[in-house]
Amino acid sequence: MDELKNTNLLDDMVAAQMAQLFNALGDTSRIRIIGLLTTREMNVGELAALVGISHSAVSHHLRQLRQMRLVRARKEGRHVYYQLDDEHINDLFRCGLEHVIHG
Amino acid sequence: MDELKNTNLLDDMVAAQMAQLFNALGDTSRIRIIGLLTTREMNVGELAALVGISHSAVSHHLRQLRQMRLVRARKEGRHVYYQLDDEHINDLFRCGLEHVIHG
Repeated sequence: MDELKNTNLLDDMVAAQMAQLFNALGDTSRIRIIGLLTTREMNVGELAALVGISHSAVSHHLRQLRQMRLVRARKEGRHVYYQLDDEHINDLFRCGLEHVIHG
Repeated sequence: MDELKNTNLLDDMVAAQMAQLFNALGDTSRIRIIGLLTTREMNVGELAALVGISHSAVSHHLRQLRQMRLVRARKEGRHVYYQLDDEHINDLFRCGLEHVIHG
């Protein structure tokens, strides 16, 4: 609690990084990509088909999501699969979904 | 899980609302306001002093945060105190903080 309090009050860097993180989630297509990746790992083609946007648009969003460490890639031969970077992302998504659905 | 999966794949409205929610958190001053309100309720003057921005800037951010149901107001006589709207917001903030600090 003390750590949290001090962080909130003092550390501009942390606040800026959190704002960046939430901004990365502040886009409908990126939210749908994250939502799909909460169910299982997927490649660009699957994501494009399910979200209903082009491969290049998906790749663009995935680059941003990887930069923010929300998503990571796994290579298998010539194929690349994307998954959530860690469990926090799942939690973050579910918290947001909870708020929107039941909030 | 089925509810979640269907929601992610089908409901554009939910995805759009989640993007809006995360966008509302995608600002350094608003993150600092939310961070402060995780510790206790505060009035505009306290928030302005601690975040280091003007009263009118704080009021502007609080309006947006109230619109997104992230924050609510409690009147006590002539004074107005702001607090997080519910525990989800606390969770959302902590998930983001966790990701930035340890992620």
